[in-house]
Parts: sequence; structure tokens; C-alpha cells
Amino acid sequence: MSGVVIPIEGGGGSRASVVPLVKLVRPDMERVNQLILSKAGSDVEMIPEVARHLIDSGGKRLRPMLTIAAAQMCDYKGDHHILLAASVEFMHTATLLHDDVVDESDMRRGKLAARMVWGNQASVLVGDFLLGQAFRMMVETGSLGALDVLSNAAAVIAEGEVMQLTTARNLDTNEDEYLAVIRAKTAALFSAAAEVGPIVADAAKSTISAFRSYGTNLGLAFQLIDDALDYGGSSSALGKNVGDDFREGKVTLPVVLSYRRGTDGEREFWKEALVESQADDARLAEAVRLMHKYDAIGDTIARARHYGEMARDALAPMKKSAHKDALIEVIEFCVARAV
Amino acid sequence: MSGVVIPIEGGGGSRASVVPLVKLVRPDMERVNQLILSKAGSDVEMIPEVARHLIDSGGKRLRPMLTIAAAQMCDYKGDHHILLAASVEFMHTATLLHDDVVDESDMRRGKLAARMVWGNQASVLVGDFLLGQAFRMMVETGSLGALDVLSNAAAVIAEGEVMQLTTARNLDTNEDEYLAVIRAKTAALFSAAAEVGPIVADAAKSTISAFRSYGTNLGLAFQLIDDALDYGGSSSALGKNVGDDFREGKVTLPVVLSYRRGTDGEREFWKEALVESQADDARLAEAVRLMHKYDAIGDTIARARHYGEMARDALAPMKKSAHKDALIEVIEFCVARAV
Repeated sequence: MSGVVIPIEGGGGSRASVVPLVKLVRPDMERVNQLILSKAGSDVEMIPEVARHLIDSGGKRLRPMLTIAAAQMCDYKGDHHILLAASVEFMHTATLLHDDVVDESDMRRGKLAARMVWGNQASVLVGDFLLGQAFRMMVETGSLGALDVLSNAAAVIAEGEVMQLTTARNLDTNEDEYLAVIRAKTAALFSAAAEVGPIVADAAKSTISAFRSYGTNLGLAFQLIDDALDYGGSSSALGKNVGDDFREGKVTLPVVLSYRRGTDGEREFWKEALVESQADDARLAEAVRLMHKYDAIGDTIARARHYGEMARDALAPMKKSAHKDALIEVIEFCVARAV
Repeated sequence: MSGVVIPIEGGGGSRASVVPLVKLVRPDMERVNQLILSKAGSDVEMIPEVARHLIDSGGKRLRPMLTIAAAQMCDYKGDHHILLAASVEFMHTATLLHDDVVDESDMRRGKLAARMVWGNQASVLVGDFLLGQAFRMMVETGSLGALDVLSNAAAVIAEGEVMQLTTARNLDTNEDEYLAVIRAKTAALFSAAAEVGPIVADAAKSTISAFRSYGTNLGLAFQLIDDALDYGGSSSALGKNVGDDFREGKVTLPVVLSYRRGTDGEREFWKEALVESQADDARLAEAVRLMHKYDAIGDTIARARHYGEMARDALAPMKKSAHKDALIEVIEFCVARAV
């Protein structure tokens, strides 16, 4: 599986796709993937085992692709974008390892979570190891600008995860508070991933800022759609892989909107399901019914479109190119997943 | 003119209106207006003259109405909301006095700006006096919570004004940067105005947070629509009171979107008009034409609608009441002004 970039699941046939982006970045991403495998190595045997369990599990590599595409689009001729892309992916992988411990998740990407095989302690520590490796690779570039952006993102992501703890099972969470969480836990890394490309390419300040804005808003749209998909997206039929957030008591936007728009009786239902942790399958079906009753999924997708439009306008001044088209198509693809 | 609340101009006949809000808060607003007049007094003769020039000029008093309505909606029985509402209006008035100096404006609300009558120095200092009076009134309430929120807003507004200086005549400004400016210079005071109501009423944390979110998002929608109206709103015919932002070289969202979506030749036009300060009437007409070509006004209104929806959902959990209906109608009214 090494060196293979796996397209994001769920894209709808003839519509927007990540394929153009994947094609443009393929040669560089092969180098990124090689670097990821080598930097996941260690004489401490358990480390590569745990790390590769997740690294080989079919992740999308969307974030490092953003770094590569952004650097290429800014005519970068060096090699530092490879190191930064691998750093970005390691930061993401570390987050997933830690998240699974915090959320007590059993599964990740359709296979057992690392913590179920090697335990929580190994998952936490290997996450820390990957973060350390990420910092070493950033430092290797010698780019203080990129270090500034990525180290800042690392702190913000952790803050976002802590914020998420305080919103879990808290139905008072409103949309602004939810947005603050996803801005930190998801959009910050998308933003940093896109921004370090033009930074190493020594691009104009306005270009750096455009990519930062593109990344932030793409990240917000991406997470909103992910949260809509966790309740089946705009389809009201319940498919598989639905309801994880519900069972974990996460208060995502579809819940926020349904709860706030609901009747007193319906709010009691949400309290039972999420605060009192009675999130069984019957309650999941009722949750989805209420979401459609109040158009909470449709409006979550509409909110995602708003951020998608902002991401598109962020890149608008860049001159037309295959890279620009591919990055715009990624926005459409991310949003279209849920429709 | 004392004691009279003047409805916001421009609302479209049978559609959403501020009238229900004005009616609900009228008795309390009469007390606020009396307080405003008395606190604008001073033995230093020039102070009441300058202050009343602006105070009597037909301002909307929208912000203090939010404070009164929010306090009433939370069943507040005391008098502190009167002091806080007057503080909020003084903070707003101080900002206007200072803005006119910074922007070198000749006119304000259809009459000569205070600085044109009494000079820049008096405008700056009377603004400072009103800010001081605002703080005295806040302190009089003894509410550390309200003081925290309003003093924070005062600092953020000033930061926003400075940020606006850096975006003026800077066509690299992107939507996120523009949003940061209006979030600080406009939304922060709307947010504080709405939030201090439930704070003095000792409301639940989630209620305080709901009003904060309502105020912030209403403020964003309000400013976006204001910025669309400065180019005539969705009408492509140029009416009066259009083009102030253009002549001052302000880079508001209609400009950001038109510039970013435009051709290289069109970007040259924007540079001439805004960076090289050649914003004559012919160029204003061309600016409006380009805005309609790229649907920049329509999309500015669409962005405002998004924040309006967030404001509405922020208040959704509050139980049905005339106050809630009136506050929701204000959102619709603000957005509908531009359509």
C-alpha cells in the first residue's frame, strides 16, 4: 500500500472529484509517502507497527496534497514542500491516534483502532512520537515562516480538541461555539497545510493570505459536511457508517440546529439520547427524523456551501491553471459528498 | 427631537420592520434617551453642543434597543439596563465622531459632520468624553460581568478601526480579512449590546451566549448589507447616498469579490479608482457595473443572509414571545434593506 494515494470515498460519479488534484500531485506525493514510511520507522519495534497501522489504512492524504499543490501552484522549485507535506500528514495522524483514545473509539477507517490492538498508552505515545517527527521535518526545512504556521496550528488543534470535550453532551452549545471548535480542530490544519506551500515558495503576502483563507474555509466546509454525513447526509435513509457522533454524544451542527429549533418535548429526547447517553439505534432513527423535520441537515450543507464559496473567492485572483481548477474542484467535491 | 426613537430608513413597506421592536421598548427607550441627553451635558459649553449635534441627528438607536429588548426578554426587573443601553449608544456615538475625523468625512446622517462645524480636535475629545461617560454609567451598575463585556468591546472596536486603516486602498484584502474588520468594528458592539441584557438579568450562561451569538451575527449581517447599500444594493440604478465607501477607498466585500473575480484589465480599473484615489462618478458607475457583472452585490447579500440565519438559530431555543419575534424580525429587516 506504500506510495499509493487513495481517493476520498463517497464522491458522486460524474460530479466534482479529487482525481484532477491527485493526478497533478502524484509524483511529489510518491516522495511524500516514501518519507512518511521512513520517518515512521524506529528501532523501538512497536512504533512502526502502530504508526503503519494507521498510515496504511487508506487515509485520504488530502492535507499533504494541499501543501504540494499550493507549492507547485506558486512555482516552487525546491524540496521543502515534501518535508512539510509529510509533517502535515503526521500532525493529522497524531491527532487521529489521540482522538481515538479520547473518544474511546473501537474502529477507525473500517478497521480496529490502534488503541484496540496496542492499547491507549501506545496510541498516545506513538502520536507524540509522530508529532515530534513532524517538528523535526519542519525544522529541517529551516523555514521559520512555515515553522511559525505549523507550530501555531499544533497548539490550536489541541485547544480545539479540549474545546470539543467541553461541548460534548452539552446541548447548550450554539453554532458559534460549534464553529470555534471545528475552526480549531479541523480548519487550522487545512489552513496551515495550504499556507506553507506559498510560504516556502516565497510567494507574495497576498498569495499566502489567499491560500490560508482557502484552507480555512475548505476545512470548515469539509468538517460541516463530515458532520452532516455522520447522519446520512441529505438522504433520509440510514446507511452504514452513520451515527458515530451520535453515539459519542458529540454536539455537531445538525444536532445544534435540531435541538434549538425543536419543541420542549423534542429537547427532552435530545437530552436522553446525548446527555444521558441513551443513544441506541431507535433513538438514532428518531434523531435523523427530527433533523429532516427541521431541515438541519440541509442547512448544515447550506452553511458548508457558504464557506465553500469563501474558499473559492479566496483563490479567485490566482491566474487560471490546472492546479487552481483542481483546488476549486476539491471544494465542490467536499460539499457534494453530502448531497 | 429628544426622546424620539427614529425608525431605520429604507425598510420596504409591507415587509419585515423594526416597528414591533420599537413599540416593545418605547417606555424604556424614553428613559434611555433622557439619560443620554443628561449625560451629554457638561459645564464645558462645547461638549453638549458637539454631542447633541450627533445625538439629535436621527440615529437609529438600534444598539440600545437590543440591550433593552434582551433585558426585558430575560424578565429583568431593575434599572441597570437603562444605564447600559445609554452606555452602548455613547460608545457608538464616540465611534462615529472619531470615524468622521479618521475618514475626513464632511457629512454624517445628511447633515454636516461635527468636525466640519467644531473641528477635528473637538470631535476627538468629545468622543473621548462620551466614552468616559459610557464607562461611568457602566460602573454605576456595579455589574462586573457587563463591564467586562463592554470594556472588551471598546478595545476590540478600536482594534477594528485600526485594522480598517490597513485594509483601506489595499486590494489584496480578502474576505476573511474584511470579515475580521467588520467583526471587530461593528459586530463586537452589537454583540455586547445584546449580551449585557441577559447579563444584568442574571440569565443562564446558555442564554447569555445565545444573545451574544445573535448580536454578533446580526452585526455581521447589518454591516454586510450596509456595505452592499453603499453601492445601491441589488438595484443597478445609482440612487443618492451611494459611493461614500468608494470615494474613501474602503475595501468592502462588494469590492473584494469584484476585484478577485475580475480580469487583469478590470483589476487595473480598481487600482486606479481605489489605490490611486481616482474615484470619480464615472468610475463609480463602472464599479457598480462590474459588481453586477460578477454578482458581487448579490453574493454580499447572500453572505449576509448566512449570518442572519445564524442569528436566528441563536435565538431559536428561547420561548416564543413578542420580544423574540421582534428581534427575529430585525434580522429580516436588516437583510431586506438591500433587496
